[in-house]
Amino acid sequence: MTAAVFDSGVGGLSVVKSLIKHKMFDEIVYYGDTARVPYGAKDQNTIARYSLEALEFLSGFEPNVLIVACNTASAYALDELRRKAAFPVAGVIEPGVLALKNGGVKKRDRVLVIGTRATIGSGVYQKLLSAQGYENVTAVPAPLLVPLVEEGIFDGAIAQEAFKRYFGDLGAFDAVIMGCTHYPLMQTALGAWFAGAKLVHSGEAIAEYLKANNLAFGGADETQIKFFASENVNRLKEVAAQWLNLP
Amino acid sequence: MTAAVFDSGVGGLSVVKSLIKHKMFDEIVYYGDTARVPYGAKDQNTIARYSLEALEFLSGFEPNVLIVACNTASAYALDELRRKAAFPVAGVIEPGVLALKNGGVKKRDRVLVIGTRATIGSGVYQKLLSAQGYENVTAVPAPLLVPLVEEGIFDGAIAQEAFKRYFGDLGAFDAVIMGCTHYPLMQTALGAWFAGAKLVHSGEAIAEYLKANNLAFGGADETQIKFFASENVNRLKEVAAQWLNLP
Repeated sequence: MTAAVFDSGVGGLSVVKSLIKHKMFDEIVYYGDTARVPYGAKDQNTIARYSLEALEFLSGFEPNVLIVACNTASAYALDELRRKAAFPVAGVIEPGVLALKNGGVKKRDRVLVIGTRATIGSGVYQKLLSAQGYENVTAVPAPLLVPLVEEGIFDGAIAQEAFKRYFGDLGAFDAVIMGCTHYPLMQTALGAWFAGAKLVHSGEAIAEYLKANNLAFGGADETQIKFFASENVNRLKEVAAQWLNLP
Repeated sequence: MTAAVFDSGVGGLSVVKSLIKHKMFDEIVYYGDTARVPYGAKDQNTIARYSLEALEFLSGFEPNVLIVACNTASAYALDELRRKAAFPVAGVIEPGVLALKNGGVKKRDRVLVIGTRATIGSGVYQKLLSAQGYENVTAVPAPLLVPLVEEGIFDGAIAQEAFKRYFGDLGAFDAVIMGCTHYPLMQTALGAWFAGAKLVHSGEAIAEYLKANNLAFGGADETQIKFFASENVNRLKEVAAQWLNLP
């Protein structure tokens, strides 16, 4: 089984990490649109156009499934990708919402969704959470967390001040959806800030979703990964080596 | 006189502000490559390619001069833009270095240059400062300052923590070149941090440079500005209204 994984940059590697951990594919073809990252502040048409270009490139590998490992692209381009693709396409938003439900988060529990300005502005998380009956949902953009992670800052004074700015007045939550694939890199710091809350991780959520939908067989002893990027593929490989503990 | 102004996004508006203040042009055509911002972490070939696309677009307005109001594009694309353009092209790096000299900063004074990773990594500031005889030059990338400014954060706890991270161990300086057109928005906070240092502002520096090189006549009572962007021109206009105090 081959999975094509598309992200605006390096963030989707946190999803790849989960796919490897759960031994889901023997081949992953990763494409990061590093020449045009970040998508989080771009508009809907631009995000959809860039996503379709990625689809065209990745189709050449004839994957069994395309995983959109970017919440922003999942929010704005999923329907169009599904119309155009010759194989199943999975985004990370629906799996994140289902992970709440399967993880025992109750309908009246307090749920926080954090993401880029574009993801939160799309209202897609809010809509799907509402459709699942969640009533206490707060959704806030936390745009600085992406550049912090890109800078290798996962905790410490700047991160804590950013948390205070975005979350300081929001109170406590029972569950927090990390609605951007960069955020799992800050999971320890976010977990300490939202002490006691269940944190939803896009990578873990989509692994669960793929299993439930028969989109991966599992049992892949080894996963071969091919990396492609719209620029500077070497930097992508460096980050991958670090995040995925590759040799 | 018409000036074409090119920037990767909204940062170049701090240069436009200086051009208006000094009454240098009766028309400014501004193009921000907002669909592909930021350039600061992209590689040399990509930056040059995007800059040449901007030149092609702006050439249609037959400007008297093209101002590259982005330090990163000035560092990597200026020579190629000059080869291809049918009119003079001015970047912001050389003017910044000359502004030091004309501002009475002496050759043994301690000079700090801050900018994006790409600008600092290009070594262009360091080379030009050395050519002018400056001996005590420190150059450091401060990549988080761009997303902070984009978020409307010009001072406060996060900004102070970022300054501490980047500048905390560097000691004192006699002059600081704000080598990114976003940074003048933080000028008050930077001025307080580097108390006593002369701050060099790309917009003011290039206004001085254009005058010295007869690339603007001055005396424009009113400046008409046309805004173009590779996406979301309305957001560019909103930021412009705020930064430039337009109606």
